[in-house]
Amino acid sequence: MQDKILDWLRKKQDYLSGDQLSQRLGISRQALWKHIQQLKDTGYEIVAVPHLGYRLASCPDRLFPSEITYGLNTKIMGKKIYYFDILPSTNEMASELGIQGAPEGTLVLAEGQSRGHGRLGRNWFSPKYKGIYLSLILRPGILPALSPVLTLIAAVSICEAIKENTGLAAQIKWPNDIFLHNKKLGGILTELNAEMDIVRFVVIGIGLNVNNDKRSLVQGGISLREEKGEPISRVSLTQEILRDMERNYLSFQAEGSQGIIEKWRNYSITLGRRVRVSLEKRQVEGEAIDIDADGGLLVRTDAGLRQKIISGDIIHCR
Amino acid sequence: MQDKILDWLRKKQDYLSGDQLSQRLGISRQALWKHIQQLKDTGYEIVAVPHLGYRLASCPDRLFPSEITYGLNTKIMGKKIYYFDILPSTNEMASELGIQGAPEGTLVLAEGQSRGHGRLGRNWFSPKYKGIYLSLILRPGILPALSPVLTLIAAVSICEAIKENTGLAAQIKWPNDIFLHNKKLGGILTELNAEMDIVRFVVIGIGLNVNNDKRSLVQGGISLREEKGEPISRVSLTQEILRDMERNYLSFQAEGSQGIIEKWRNYSITLGRRVRVSLEKRQVEGEAIDIDADGGLLVRTDAGLRQKIISGDIIHCR
Repeated sequence: MQDKILDWLRKKQDYLSGDQLSQRLGISRQALWKHIQQLKDTGYEIVAVPHLGYRLASCPDRLFPSEITYGLNTKIMGKKIYYFDILPSTNEMASELGIQGAPEGTLVLAEGQSRGHGRLGRNWFSPKYKGIYLSLILRPGILPALSPVLTLIAAVSICEAIKENTGLAAQIKWPNDIFLHNKKLGGILTELNAEMDIVRFVVIGIGLNVNNDKRSLVQGGISLREEKGEPISRVSLTQEILRDMERNYLSFQAEGSQGIIEKWRNYSITLGRRVRVSLEKRQVEGEAIDIDADGGLLVRTDAGLRQKIISGDIIHCR
Repeated sequence: MQDKILDWLRKKQDYLSGDQLSQRLGISRQALWKHIQQLKDTGYEIVAVPHLGYRLASCPDRLFPSEITYGLNTKIMGKKIYYFDILPSTNEMASELGIQGAPEGTLVLAEGQSRGHGRLGRNWFSPKYKGIYLSLILRPGILPALSPVLTLIAAVSICEAIKENTGLAAQIKWPNDIFLHNKKLGGILTELNAEMDIVRFVVIGIGLNVNNDKRSLVQGGISLREEKGEPISRVSLTQEILRDMERNYLSFQAEGSQGIIEKWRNYSITLGRRVRVSLEKRQVEGEAIDIDADGGLLVRTDAGLRQKIISGDIIHCR
């Protein structure tokens, strides 16, 4: 019911009389008043003026499903949303939902994470109401070996959404980090649930520093707000990420990885750089020259050898 | 306590006096008698003779953890056992245990499965007390793309164990079926839980027709008992599979996939055959000439092209 009230107020963009509103919703004036109070309690500013009625003055910066859904216009991403004030980890929740059969595009959102983590269990600081912490369930029906392309899609979509929403030029450090002016802005954690030769579902987790101030950033981290000098709407940015994810994902499904890889090259801060990669038993050092159709990084060593790196942490030298 | 009683009776292999037994276990004669009754109820034949004591005459053909563990002598496989009279699916249970952090080698055993399944959700008929239905959790720390090798390891280990225990020559149809005299004897279902570039854990599920009679076999299926003409000890065969899995898995960890691939070639009924493979958008037909180090099947088409097949169902032509 509260979502319906918000819908009417949003459409009107002006005062809407309490009589009209309660008639349209089929509830009493008193019931309407109670719902309006509850909306105010959750952070909506609703102005009430005698003889004029109610007007929506502002929405809280909360990732409520009704906020995310309003004007989203996607076919897959976020059609089903699970929202939490705080979660240990959105990826863990999404994995459980995936096992229970949640459909493609299911979105898990949390305002904060108590055990947010990146690759190899590394901590991802997830202070409440500051960042975007979301996980998407995809069911691409591909070979497990092709799944790194989904990380590329997420990385490109995040950079596109940030550009669109803030004008800032975020970049990608292979394989899964988002950087802004050489500081860490966010990361992607892709997890697979698969049979030997087919992916059942993938969870794409995204953690992004948005409205963090200096105190809510770890060393070497940066937020969009710090860089832009003003607060960012986490709702709008989340919506834009979902739209860009959908466009890039559908293009990958229809035409393969080539288009996404071309975009990725433009956002990369890794290509052309001298990199050092620690593999299990040895190190590879050389110039990062390209990524291939599976998402692997191609490195040319000083001896002139081309090596394909599928896994691991890279260090950008100098 | 009942496991301890069984241990003593097994070691003695003859009559053991009730006085001695109750003293060693630190329980009363009456408590001992109650435990003996309960063991008899679960299917152990224990003979009691006045003045001589108790003797273990026979064990039931049940996959009780105490039966599997007795004389197993493995370091990893089956060090922790979860046993069920009936489960929907041993793989599903093992996946849950894996997510909860169950260690490498954890074994899930069920006497029957109500929703046993193979690749792509296909049904696997799992009548109670007839077959072996088990799942093993492994944590090999490899790339997802390398996981098909684990299916090869399971397939080879099953063939080795059957040879050792019954003398029968089971064979492997790529990628995951066990055949006996061109009829289906069993299958393997390998499931991954992984990050983009590292496997967190793998569940290897094995379903094998052992003591099934004609009525408890599906069309085109065969059991060891039908072929051998006598009942097979499911306990001994399970133990042998675990031992062979451990040996082959450790060899893979130490030396890579080459050794297992050489063994696999000898058990294969696919290599040298004319095969047809249905891929997503087209069919490949030709001679299956080899498998490569990742477990992919190499097919030479009539046009002389070599194609690597990673995924899919193959049909043996003629």
